[in-house]
Amino acid sequence: MFSIDHLGIAVKSLAQATQFYRGLGLEVLDEEIVPQEKVRVAMVPVGESRIELLEPTSEDSTIAKFLAKRGEGLHHVALHVDNLEATVERLKKNGTRLISEDIKIGAGGHLYVFVHPSSAGGVLLELVQDEPLGVG
Amino acid sequence: MFSIDHLGIAVKSLAQATQFYRGLGLEVLDEEIVPQEKVRVAMVPVGESRIELLEPTSEDSTIAKFLAKRGEGLHHVALHVDNLEATVERLKKNGTRLISEDIKIGAGGHLYVFVHPSSAGGVLLELVQDEPLGVG
Repeated sequence: MFSIDHLGIAVKSLAQATQFYRGLGLEVLDEEIVPQEKVRVAMVPVGESRIELLEPTSEDSTIAKFLAKRGEGLHHVALHVDNLEATVERLKKNGTRLISEDIKIGAGGHLYVFVHPSSAGGVLLELVQDEPLGVG
Repeated sequence: MFSIDHLGIAVKSLAQATQFYRGLGLEVLDEEIVPQEKVRVAMVPVGESRIELLEPTSEDSTIAKFLAKRGEGLHHVALHVDNLEATVERLKKNGTRLISEDIKIGAGGHLYVFVHPSSAGGVLLELVQDEPLGVG
């Protein structure tokens, strides 16, 4: 089944952003550092989805560059799909522009691809699948 | 309970955007025109949330101005909250900047306020409640 897996929001200050979401009445999980992405992340569960607040830990991280260019705001939307391989095949046939042709494996073992904003209404769209290929 | 109610995405062409989301395997509901907002809307249910694709019907609509300034992309994120009145009171005490001070009533009878992006990590954040005040 489809669902919104998460919204990735680039922020300058996790402290300030988490204070706002706590003020709304939401729970903010413990911060984590993701070294390969050079970000500090705070997850905010919202129903079946979550908001990922992303603060750069280095000036050469993707998120730091995004902040320098666009300021704070939504960086990407991640949709959960059941069969990522079939979805990617279908998108390729439709001429959808992907950031990379291959399905990648994330830190938590999930599978993902990014659709280029030019194919997805100006939104950087991540498609994720929890289970490894062939198991689901 | 909190949930992501919808993501509002500003697009130049509903035809193109809906084709992409259909290609992903998602259902796209019938288009509707919202005269007071001067937009044509296509809803894409995604789990407990939905993606609202917004195409302007007039050059002086908010969405047309957004497209002219920023191009296609996420216009706002709407979170569903249980008690909007209490939430707004709490936010005001925290010094959160709201687009307008008062809770408004939408076309479908739902209640809503907008939090200014400067208070919400650069995201225009709509807070919505389904039931009228005093009933929930």
